Amino acid sequence: MKNILIIGAGLSATSLIHYLLKHSEKHNWKITVGDISLETAQKKINNHPNGIALRFNLKDLEQRTAEIAASDIVVSMVPSSMHIIVAKECLRHGKHMLTPSYVTPEMMELDEEAKEKGLSFLNELGVDPGIDHMSAMKIIDQIKKRGGKIETFKSFCGGLVAPDCDNNPWNYKISWNLRNIVVAGQGTAQFKENGHYKYIPYNKLFSTLTKTRISNYGDFEVYPNRDSLQYCKLYGLNNIPSIMRGTIRRPGYSEAWNVLVQLGCTDDTYEMKDSHKLTHLDYLLSFLPESDKSVEESLANFTHIDSKSVIMTKLKWLGLFSDEIIGLKNATPAMILQKILEKKWALEPTDRDLLVMQHFFDFEINGEKKRITSSMTYEGTDRENTAMAYTVGTPLAIATKLLAKDKIELKGVQIPTSPEFYEPILAELDNLGIQFIVEEIDL
Amino acid sequence: MKNILIIGAGLSATSLIHYLLKHSEKHNWKITVGDISLETAQKKINNHPNGIALRFNLKDLEQRTAEIAASDIVVSMVPSSMHIIVAKECLRHGKHMLTPSYVTPEMMELDEEAKEKGLSFLNELGVDPGIDHMSAMKIIDQIKKRGGKIETFKSFCGGLVAPDCDNNPWNYKISWNLRNIVVAGQGTAQFKENGHYKYIPYNKLFSTLTKTRISNYGDFEVYPNRDSLQYCKLYGLNNIPSIMRGTIRRPGYSEAWNVLVQLGCTDDTYEMKDSHKLTHLDYLLSFLPESDKSVEESLANFTHIDSKSVIMTKLKWLGLFSDEIIGLKNATPAMILQKILEKKWALEPTDRDLLVMQHFFDFEINGEKKRITSSMTYEGTDRENTAMAYTVGTPLAIATKLLAKDKIELKGVQIPTSPEFYEPILAELDNLGIQFIVEEIDL
Repeated sequence: MKNILIIGAGLSATSLIHYLLKHSEKHNWKITVGDISLETAQKKINNHPNGIALRFNLKDLEQRTAEIAASDIVVSMVPSSMHIIVAKECLRHGKHMLTPSYVTPEMMELDEEAKEKGLSFLNELGVDPGIDHMSAMKIIDQIKKRGGKIETFKSFCGGLVAPDCDNNPWNYKISWNLRNIVVAGQGTAQFKENGHYKYIPYNKLFSTLTKTRISNYGDFEVYPNRDSLQYCKLYGLNNIPSIMRGTIRRPGYSEAWNVLVQLGCTDDTYEMKDSHKLTHLDYLLSFLPESDKSVEESLANFTHIDSKSVIMTKLKWLGLFSDEIIGLKNATPAMILQKILEKKWALEPTDRDLLVMQHFFDFEINGEKKRITSSMTYEGTDRENTAMAYTVGTPLAIATKLLAKDKIELKGVQIPTSPEFYEPILAELDNLGIQFIVEEIDL
Repeated sequence: MKNILIIGAGLSATSLIHYLLKHSEKHNWKITVGDISLETAQKKINNHPNGIALRFNLKDLEQRTAEIAASDIVVSMVPSSMHIIVAKECLRHGKHMLTPSYVTPEMMELDEEAKEKGLSFLNELGVDPGIDHMSAMKIIDQIKKRGGKIETFKSFCGGLVAPDCDNNPWNYKISWNLRNIVVAGQGTAQFKENGHYKYIPYNKLFSTLTKTRISNYGDFEVYPNRDSLQYCKLYGLNNIPSIMRGTIRRPGYSEAWNVLVQLGCTDDTYEMKDSHKLTHLDYLLSFLPESDKSVEESLANFTHIDSKSVIMTKLKWLGLFSDEIIGLKNATPAMILQKILEKKWALEPTDRDLLVMQHFFDFEINGEKKRITSSMTYEGTDRENTAMAYTVGTPLAIATKLLAKDKIELKGVQIPTSPEFYEPILAELDNLGIQFIVEEIDL
């Protein structure tokens, strides 16, 4: 019998817990779910005979030590900055571990010791990162096996809202961490195009757009992610002339978001004076020069947009011109923007989100130029069962199963770029409805 | 006899050293000048009988301890990050100290102990900071004494080039630290206007301009400095409705500099790949999307400027389109830009720089609204004897004299905002040609 401990029973853990409980009888697993809220853990276990719900406080050293020592595999679903606490405890007690999050330098430091102890520390097993690695590497390996030379790799992903629930002018609702959405893209986007390194600063990011189209879902736009260059090494694409990873939005989102960026509304580095007293309009005016003109005109002039444009419609719809009090003390511009957005972009109880992922591979083979496009779309069921949560939790659940069945031989700190991961996981994801449509054309 | 130790004999120390040597006989001072280059120290002393030149290495603990212990007053002219080393040593040995630089939080931590030991640690005694504090506080105190209520305070300063040496399209040459010029304004400018706090992010800074005019010198433009709000407290202007400090440039400078900012050329946070191999043009193209158009057109489109505009003339004049190799390893965009600028913006041997400072005070008195304008301009003599160096070194020299004559009673970490400083120092600066023209008008 294997003891599997899941720490954190939030939204993304639902499908993971359900999957592991479902497979627990056949494989003789005990599934312990610990959460800071006992009620949340109990709700997810739903009286399943192989499940145990715990009130779990990661900061409680005694409980942490005892529970991890008593388990065989630990799945860390805590906020990403806290995985390292779980990882160090797993290392101490010789337990395998999985997370859906990016490998941090701190996590990477545990690689050697984990290898020595024969432990698998599996990371980036959600959707992005996770399914993106697996679905891209599968095709990259196939093209290489055919003798093709990849010249362009583009990989896009986005969490959006299903078309029939898409009823706001931004064509956007929140299906993951809003704070991450507000500060997305800060820094400099680095990628390669036609053999040239390209650097796009934050203030130009949301006007450096690529258009794309996805079957049955229509048109989208993409802005570049921060660091596409590291994927040259991660995916074995050294010296590739063009590589870019990006974030997918509906057309028009970025030009409106860009106004908020230009104004400084996404800045998280300083606190606004008397922030708790400000109305939404005061907040907006803080970023505009004093003027005798109307706020609309002043905003339009300062940001070089048309005061009658759809951009202005989007900004007004957010309530930026209202006299509602914000009520946040010592808040940064980004914190205030987050508060304004969370009211407007919230999923309704019956809203379904939409996860879209798309890869492009341009390659040369036998003197011919070809393009493979691989696209995945997945719609959620409702606000509690989102596509985002399902596509994060499911690959992690499958990987946990493989680990519990001793099907993963790779030790140390790993991400799922090798066939050992992507073959079984993608096959099972396909059975579970997370399917890629792959097309090849001549260029 | 008083021993005065000057650490650092660079450009800004010249007038300081000459002033103190000149006054040394009358007051029976010994002036020791220590520099990492003995030759530089010797050159500045020029065999003066009261002067001693030393090869001085601040990192040499033994030498640092011995020299500071043997002095009565230490003037720190080292790079600003190193003043704290001098200050801690002065505290240990019970010596007074002066610097031309901003008080850092680390320096402020020494305040209490310096007071306990009866030591004066005098900072911000150059031109900006320094002369700006003194000339502004003199008028602020005068207006308050008359019963006036100050409603607007604006204070501008700039290091430029004298009109008859102004022969490039930027109307700008380097009279101080170029690195600081390249990264100037990064962060968010905060000020107050009509009772409203205003926040201008870096990407909007160089398009948020105020025009000004200075007698005999014509028109200028001003962009806001980073933190004007702290001057409410420093200058006793709490609850003032409008306050803004800014940097003075010739008209047209900022709109061209803004293109470099928008492109990301001033970013100092990441290293460009293969930076040593890049030509100037490669560098420029790194920030532009791939395009079939000419570089000029591509740049003009991307940054929304006219390809035939004076902005383009300025950018071309910098040599950004040339195939010269940059040759800097592991360089950030800002480091490369600095290297490009230092060739083009250098002062010629006979070039004279220009220092301009201007304050505006709008106030109400007996129901009437008035404005006082206070302006100072100073031209350098040549590349070695700049206005910048003279206006930094001279107030510091006068303050050193006052301290040596026991005329400064304030102890602890101080900046020159009180009459004890500004009355004698401004009077002597006036005699030495650093003069403010003060005008009062009814509004």
